[in-house]
Amino acid sequence: MAERTLHGTGATPRSGVGSVVWYGRDISLLDPDGVEVDPEMEGERFADAVDTARTELESEREATAERVGEQEAAVFDAHIQFLEDPTIEDAVETMIGEGLPAPNAVDAAFGEHIEQFEGMDGRMAERADDLRDVRDRLLRLLTDGERVDLGDLPEGSVVLAERLTPSDTAQLDPERVAGFATVTGGRTSHAAIFARSLALPAVVGIGETLESVEGGTEVVVDGDDGTLLVGPDDDEREAAASGSGAAIVDESVETTDGKHIEVAANIGQPAELDPAAQRGADGVGLYRTEFLFLDRETPPSEDEQYEAVREVLDTFPDGRVVVRTLDIGGDKRIPYLDLPAEENPFLGERGIRRSLDPDSDLFATQLRALLRAAADGAGDLAIMFPLVATVEELDGALDALDAAAADLEGRETEVADPEVGVMIETPSAVFMAEELAARVDFLSIGTNDLTQYVMAADRENERVGDLHDPTHPGVLRAIRQTVKSAHDEDAWVGMCGEMAGDPDLTELLVGLGLDELSMSAVTIPEVKTAVSETEHSAASERADRARLAATRSEVHDTLEL
Amino acid sequence: MAERTLHGTGATPRSGVGSVVWYGRDISLLDPDGVEVDPEMEGERFADAVDTARTELESEREATAERVGEQEAAVFDAHIQFLEDPTIEDAVETMIGEGLPAPNAVDAAFGEHIEQFEGMDGRMAERADDLRDVRDRLLRLLTDGERVDLGDLPEGSVVLAERLTPSDTAQLDPERVAGFATVTGGRTSHAAIFARSLALPAVVGIGETLESVEGGTEVVVDGDDGTLLVGPDDDEREAAASGSGAAIVDESVETTDGKHIEVAANIGQPAELDPAAQRGADGVGLYRTEFLFLDRETPPSEDEQYEAVREVLDTFPDGRVVVRTLDIGGDKRIPYLDLPAEENPFLGERGIRRSLDPDSDLFATQLRALLRAAADGAGDLAIMFPLVATVEELDGALDALDAAAADLEGRETEVADPEVGVMIETPSAVFMAEELAARVDFLSIGTNDLTQYVMAADRENERVGDLHDPTHPGVLRAIRQTVKSAHDEDAWVGMCGEMAGDPDLTELLVGLGLDELSMSAVTIPEVKTAVSETEHSAASERADRARLAATRSEVHDTLEL
Repeated sequence: MAERTLHGTGATPRSGVGSVVWYGRDISLLDPDGVEVDPEMEGERFADAVDTARTELESEREATAERVGEQEAAVFDAHIQFLEDPTIEDAVETMIGEGLPAPNAVDAAFGEHIEQFEGMDGRMAERADDLRDVRDRLLRLLTDGERVDLGDLPEGSVVLAERLTPSDTAQLDPERVAGFATVTGGRTSHAAIFARSLALPAVVGIGETLESVEGGTEVVVDGDDGTLLVGPDDDEREAAASGSGAAIVDESVETTDGKHIEVAANIGQPAELDPAAQRGADGVGLYRTEFLFLDRETPPSEDEQYEAVREVLDTFPDGRVVVRTLDIGGDKRIPYLDLPAEENPFLGERGIRRSLDPDSDLFATQLRALLRAAADGAGDLAIMFPLVATVEELDGALDALDAAAADLEGRETEVADPEVGVMIETPSAVFMAEELAARVDFLSIGTNDLTQYVMAADRENERVGDLHDPTHPGVLRAIRQTVKSAHDEDAWVGMCGEMAGDPDLTELLVGLGLDELSMSAVTIPEVKTAVSETEHSAASERADRARLAATRSEVHDTLEL
Repeated sequence: MAERTLHGTGATPRSGVGSVVWYGRDISLLDPDGVEVDPEMEGERFADAVDTARTELESEREATAERVGEQEAAVFDAHIQFLEDPTIEDAVETMIGEGLPAPNAVDAAFGEHIEQFEGMDGRMAERADDLRDVRDRLLRLLTDGERVDLGDLPEGSVVLAERLTPSDTAQLDPERVAGFATVTGGRTSHAAIFARSLALPAVVGIGETLESVEGGTEVVVDGDDGTLLVGPDDDEREAAASGSGAAIVDESVETTDGKHIEVAANIGQPAELDPAAQRGADGVGLYRTEFLFLDRETPPSEDEQYEAVREVLDTFPDGRVVVRTLDIGGDKRIPYLDLPAEENPFLGERGIRRSLDPDSDLFATQLRALLRAAADGAGDLAIMFPLVATVEELDGALDALDAAAADLEGRETEVADPEVGVMIETPSAVFMAEELAARVDFLSIGTNDLTQYVMAADRENERVGDLHDPTHPGVLRAIRQTVKSAHDEDAWVGMCGEMAGDPDLTELLVGLGLDELSMSAVTIPEVKTAVSETEHSAASERADRARLAATRSEVHDTLEL
């Protein structure tokens, strides 16, 4: 048995073993009362640190843009802005003038601003994280703290940190990292999502006890149990090293009684295509097109979008690729769209609502690109509309699709006739599922948003995290009602929320009648295995009992979870 | 016919006729280039204006606290804070030092801060309104602008204004005002809600054309049509003066085929009790207890809450009074609760979620007060839990109620056994309505929130205003499912959202099977009349057709709306 076991939240159902490398702020500030300080020298040290930090940030920005993408690199621009903020700079210089050592002045001046941002709403509160990054960078430079280069870690490193910010994870080289563990964070934190998309073992939210683990110690990161084993024994080490993942299944799968279930991948950016194919995805059940639109000054052209979709279709020549049209709203920053700040962005102008804006040609351009790619690409393209709440919206989207096809025919461009579907994310769409299904080929249930609206619980708010759980019977009933409505209208029905990727829920979902499950690449092998071990008729019976339960704990008892 | 007809949004279905009094900023700033300015004198004028403004604000604060309540008076504290803000004061003084006349300096300095707040999210943006109030007050004092005293208008005044802020409406004397009309605002603006709770004729959002109406002109405010008739003819004047409201019906009402429908009032503060009784409410279908908790430093005691509820029960000695337990969340400011800012407060820790917090005794105290009042008061008290999403939550609330009763029995205090109900506001509660109804006496549908969650559309976001409409068939299906589940479990079911108070929808709601409708006092007579003109069996048939329609426009066609 390991010397110690620390508990947190598992981010991916995978394990890894390696040697601890600590990352982040570990800076004992000087006790200013006991030291003689030369303000002039401290002022110069501060100015030097700012210059060095700027140079570092600029080069990291460039490297990230190249390696990961413009979107991920943009965070460094924000850091440079804060670094050069005259109010903060003045505050630091004033405190140095009053006799504080430079690191203490930096800590105090940034701390004040961090607190202010933390007290603000939503988007503003995120700036506190950026400010912390900049502060820690300056502190490291001022205290000669040794810098861990996340992009150049020894192979087999397990990174421990208080938190990992987007600018940290963007630098991590997944080839060299055996896993990571953090003091803070939950299942939906940036670090956890990042770990899932790269199938990296990770445990988040361990708490301050993590800080007692020394650098160089051997640990096992068990993302399945949500534990960090410090000083594992031979059995534990071997179990982790051999990998807890199921074997990859390349062929398509069916239940023991012969019902075929499509197991597909959710894709958020091109870098995720190859891992998805390698882990045995039958196709793509959710291709998010937002990455094409973020962090640029003008929208992507029709040709640019065509090329991006062609790439997906050609990666899955024998599969189906479901492309979701642009799903953007007040919670994302896009300079060339005039997106107003909204008090409750999750209840605002998102998804199809924005696409149907008659003053914008973004939607028409995207639909033309999709129709052309469908005609030319290898795989079978399907088009899916997000956040539909009314039949009117779907009719509007279908009209736009017809108009796009007519435009292309006018240009004498070959046009395909792809499958069309609707995402079921709003409760209204559940209540209207029959009418929606009658107009399209398929429905796809987005459980992250659907759970959020059915339970009235923000999926990013940890205070209502217990409510944001798709195994509440209210959500199961919404799912079943959707499946039944779709099948009554001869449409197939899939699921592309986080729920679909949980192998413990595969039997339930098959039992509820889903025809397709689409997920982050990491659990595709486990879900395929689970499908092939499920008997459809028994699963249906058990799923019926689960959804008719009164409480979540009765659901869990029924499912033996 | 009137000389001119201006169009806006009707806030109440009532009409009034009167003589225009303009209220608000009408200040032509000096052209600073053409004037000789003595900075010292301007500085003194500014200091004097600040002193006078402070005195005015303090006395208005006192008067409002007495006449309306502490909650409404609190806005003046915010104004005094802004008046004394050293940053703004410094900016004004600096500009005066640079040669600007005092009014121009005030306008410029405040303008800068107003713009900053306007650019911010939600709660912060509201501060811009407060700043505008303070600026206008100072400008009036500095330019000797004549002040319209909203509390002392000639009888039969129609107030026209760009906007009416909370500090404005709190001063309005409804006895002397025949109505009001504003340039800005929508149906959910503060001014519109205020007009509805006092049954005052009002049209909002007329636009800048309103500014062309001269003071002293005779106008008709038609809140039903949403029009302002400038220079009405005799017929129009008479129609408005005779009042468009239905006659008050004091007795309870039933449909032509004998189904009794309870018509009750929604009450938000004690001042609304008498108007509700006078307009013929059978009882109170929603008594919001939040006013007891807002704008104070410590929570109200058990006795204080007992007294407040006793007052309601004694106002309706023969009726039922449904008291909703505290429904508060991240979107309201309560100093003695540690409410975190939430990114999507409507999807956060609200209602019963907060009441069940084991670290707080607020809920237990409130339940004890309610049980005592139920035993002693004249009317029949019923207790209702807000924002329930799961059966677990309801079970927790019922346990707390049992514990409160046991506490009181231990004190040898008399305890009643009141009716208990659940608000149906979340889609999850709709899907679980049968299990919820089996545990309580009644369900009450809160259509404002239910529509918001079913349609995933923030009810305060005008960009999705078309979706936030309870006549979408998705919402009608949710309502019908709730009613059916309640009746299957022998529970009665009411509605206390805005929808219940729209007399055009009364037939639909009776047809959907609701047993009780609760609303702002203004439309109680119209709804009672509509009930007594409805045939229940025909209404049911038509309601079935409406909810089975595919689109909202089909619903409207079916209902002949």
